[in-house]
Order: sequence, then C-alpha cells, then structure tokens
Amino acid sequence: MRPQFVLFGDSITELSFKSGGWGASLTDTYSRKADILVRGYDGYTSRWALFLLHHIFPLTSSTPPVATTVFFGANDAALTGRYSERQHVPLDEYKENLRKIVRHLKECSPTMLIVLITPPPIDEEWQQQYAASPHGEKAMKLPERTNEVTGIYANGCVEVAKEFGVSSVNLWSKMQEIQGWQKKFLRLHIHRTRDLADGSRDFMIHPILTHHLITHKTLSIPLHLSDGLHLTPEGNRVVYEEVVKVLSGAWLSAPEMPADFPHHLEIDPENPAKVFQERCLL
Amino acid sequence: MRPQFVLFGDSITELSFKSGGWGASLTDTYSRKADILVRGYDGYTSRWALFLLHHIFPLTSSTPPVATTVFFGANDAALTGRYSERQHVPLDEYKENLRKIVRHLKECSPTMLIVLITPPPIDEEWQQQYAASPHGEKAMKLPERTNEVTGIYANGCVEVAKEFGVSSVNLWSKMQEIQGWQKKFLRLHIHRTRDLADGSRDFMIHPILTHHLITHKTLSIPLHLSDGLHLTPEGNRVVYEEVVKVLSGAWLSAPEMPADFPHHLEIDPENPAKVFQERCLL
Repeated sequence: MRPQFVLFGDSITELSFKSGGWGASLTDTYSRKADILVRGYDGYTSRWALFLLHHIFPLTSSTPPVATTVFFGANDAALTGRYSERQHVPLDEYKENLRKIVRHLKECSPTMLIVLITPPPIDEEWQQQYAASPHGEKAMKLPERTNEVTGIYANGCVEVAKEFGVSSVNLWSKMQEIQGWQKKFLRLHIHRTRDLADGSRDFMIHPILTHHLITHKTLSIPLHLSDGLHLTPEGNRVVYEEVVKVLSGAWLSAPEMPADFPHHLEIDPENPAKVFQERCLL
Repeated sequence: MRPQFVLFGDSITELSFKSGGWGASLTDTYSRKADILVRGYDGYTSRWALFLLHHIFPLTSSTPPVATTVFFGANDAALTGRYSERQHVPLDEYKENLRKIVRHLKECSPTMLIVLITPPPIDEEWQQQYAASPHGEKAMKLPERTNEVTGIYANGCVEVAKEFGVSSVNLWSKMQEIQGWQKKFLRLHIHRTRDLADGSRDFMIHPILTHHLITHKTLSIPLHLSDGLHLTPEGNRVVYEEVVKVLSGAWLSAPEMPADFPHHLEIDPENPAKVFQERCLL
C-alpha cells in the first residue's frame, strides 16, 4: 500500500485542511503517491504531545510512517501571567520534549524522514487586540505571546533538529523575510460561520474563542478573527512550500514517486487487463 | 485507532483536496474523529475501477473502512464517436460494475456505510467549448458528454443503491435544483498554473487537458479551464454537504463521534497525566 506521512502538531496542524490549508495541499500534491494523516491537536503543547506519542506512533507498527512533521511550540511559547499560562512550557523542557519525540520516531523507524517545524512568528499588535476582544472586560489587554519569545522557541527547535541531523523548517524566520508578513500570513479574517448539514456550526477560530462561542451557541456572531498566530491561506502556502521542499530534497519528491496504479491513458480500452497484468496487479 | 473513510472514484474524487475541495472539507469536519483516504483515479471508469477493487479493499483486511463513497459514472457516460469514446461504458455494464463494487465492499465489511454518488450534471454549452479548445483544429466541435445521457447513468446509480439498500447521493438532480447551476457549480476557471517547489507544475484541470499540457511542458499557458464537468468550490460544497448528510443520518455524525484524545481544556496543567489515565490512555 501507499506510504504514509503523518502531520503531528497543534491547531496549526489540526486546521490544515480548511480551505487553502497546507495539509490539504500536501494531500493533493501526493495524490496517488502517499496518504497524509492529520494528527493535529488544538491547544496542545510539546509536554502534552508526549502522552499521545505511543498511541499515534506505536513501536510495534509494521508500517510506520515514512515521513512525519512535528509542529509544536506556538502554545509552549505562551507567556506566564496571561490567560494562556496553562499552556506555557519552559524553553529547556520544550527542547527536551522535542528530543523525546525525535528519539521515539527514530525508534519507530530509523529511516523515517522527520521534519521539525518551528512556530510561526507572532503579529503582536493583533495578538493584543485578540486578547482584548473575546474576554471583554476581563481582558488583560496584554498579548498572550510575543514575537521575540516565540523566536527563542523557534531557535530551540532548529537546534534540536541539528543535534539529531533531522530536517527542520524555520517558519519563524522564513515568514519574516517577506515584507508585510503580519498582514499577509497572520491576519486571519473569518467573516462568517459555517452551518453544517447537521445543524451544528463550524468555526475556523482559535481554541479560546471556540470555547467562548460554544457557551453562546445560539448567538450568530459575525466572526472577524485574527489572532495574530493562526495562518492565512498565504501563510499556509509558506508551510506547504517549505515542507514540500524538505520532502523533495530528501527521497520523497512527488513527481518522482510511483503512482499506485496506471494512469488512465496507459489503459488499452480493448484490453484493459493488460497494463494491470504487466504491473503484477492482477 | 481512528475509523477510516475511503473516497473511491474518478478525477472528481482525485481533485477533491484542491482548495475548497469536498475531500479536504470532509477531512476537516472529521478531524480527530476519522481518517479520510483518497482513492481517486483521474479518467477511470467503473470498468477500470474493478481492477483496483481487491487492492484498495482487500478482503483480508482486519480494519476495513467504516464508510466508503463510490463516485464513478462521469467518464462511463462519455459518448461514443467522440474523443473520450475510450472511456465509454454502456449503461447496463456501468450498473453491473457498481453492483460488483457494492458486493465486494459488503464482503469486506457487512457494516460498512456505502454511499454511491451519481455523476454531476453536464454544462453542455461549456463542454462543447472545452472540446473545441485544447484540440485546436482536430477538435470535433461536439461535446464529449450530454446532460441527458449523464442523467440516465445517474438514475442507474440510484437504482443500484436501492437494490442493495445502500445510501446514494443524486448529485445530478440535486445540483440542477439550483438556478444557474451551470455557472455556479460547473464553470471552473483556473487562471494560473501553480509552480511547485520542485520546479514542476500543478494543474487543476481535466485529464485530457493535463495530457495536452504535459506534452508542451515548457509553455506557460494561462489556463481558463471550464470543462462543464469538473466542480467549482461551490460545486464541491454540494458534494461535501450531501455526503455529510448521509454520514450524519447514519451513525457517523462528526459532532457525536468521540475525539481520539482529550480536548486541551480538559487537561489539568498541574496534573496532565490525570485525564489520560482516566481514559485508559496511559
């Protein structure tokens, strides 16, 4: 069967199948070549990710993933003394947690392509506005994260990748190379909620805001979400391109990987069995 | 592990992870609930699909999918005497092929939720323009498909579903309920090609046109594709909504399915192990 790629991370991974999402784009690019499995957990830190490790990547698996992206840190870098303090993980522990994850994945499969992705940069101005809006009067009017602190975590992530000789994507640096990165990559606007067929609603929003809205389920709130952390479609595009670069630079270039079955133009309409026979698929 | 849903079909399934695609939306909706596997094969008919059946759905699997969408017919309904004649499958054979697929899936797992999806309607005016454009002088100036013939295949598909008591989505009827369905759901415009990180190009286009462009790889052709068959994001939305309706009406409503791990707000930051212990995840 097809090789599997696992996307392991927090909400930026979990939300990666929204319209324009990097996970969906990867699935599209590796169509007929590899299966992409999302293992994204909204709000999770590297500390909490350790509890999932053995379940998602059992050491006994006879078919471990051939590639895994590990994308934590955005929550770990939450500041102490703010609303998201519960998610804060000290830098040294964050790095040690990443080491544990890498060691486990290598134990799972010594040939697995491991890609550590750093947290994206923070648009502090919008983080602050975001912090002020959903909590109303209770808002602390202080950002949950700063770009500088997140940058330190990003460096830590890249250092761990170097220690092990595994690949990394420094999203924090990469995004800031582009003029206007804040607006382009991070100022996410969602203008409407989505009504699902079953009557429930689907919000493309930050976990805290989700929580807030769930408690006011009957309200139809026009959403203008931009938390300065989650990615716009253009931001998703950067993640997608960087991950594809790493995969292609290794042995997992989509155009060079074999498709699982013959292209329809290779099928002889008079004798369709022929091409399947030739490929030992019959 | 998570239950699997398999999307088995032709290009409308293969392309379903493009931006706004129905496969990506399903993956998003069932995030942390189910894994969605794409088994879409550009240009395939129900006849050729039979060669894949045992590979994609081995009878020996201990974890068969809990749900499968079967989405063929758009190519089967190609007219004889036209460019796509090689794809034409007579109506009776199409129905018999669908029966074989359903029987095989039921043998794989008697509890599998099987959803037969009919081909979408055809925007004949644009099919004709499409037929004329990529083939230049060689164009037959005749549409590859007509809406009437495709409608007969759609009825055949629904009949087979009824015979077996499995679910179906009559996309052909459903889409035509909406005023302006042609433009809204089927007039797909792609204004630019996408340069991939590895230098290759990705086209969101019809198989025949793909073939045409591959042979002229060095040309940068501005694409204005609308073949009157492939779906716009709004068209994808209809497929998504109809499939979710069927899944939710059965036992696979996303909001009611358990998430694979605790929500981050259930984790006690002072004792994160607790909630994992309580759920026998430790």
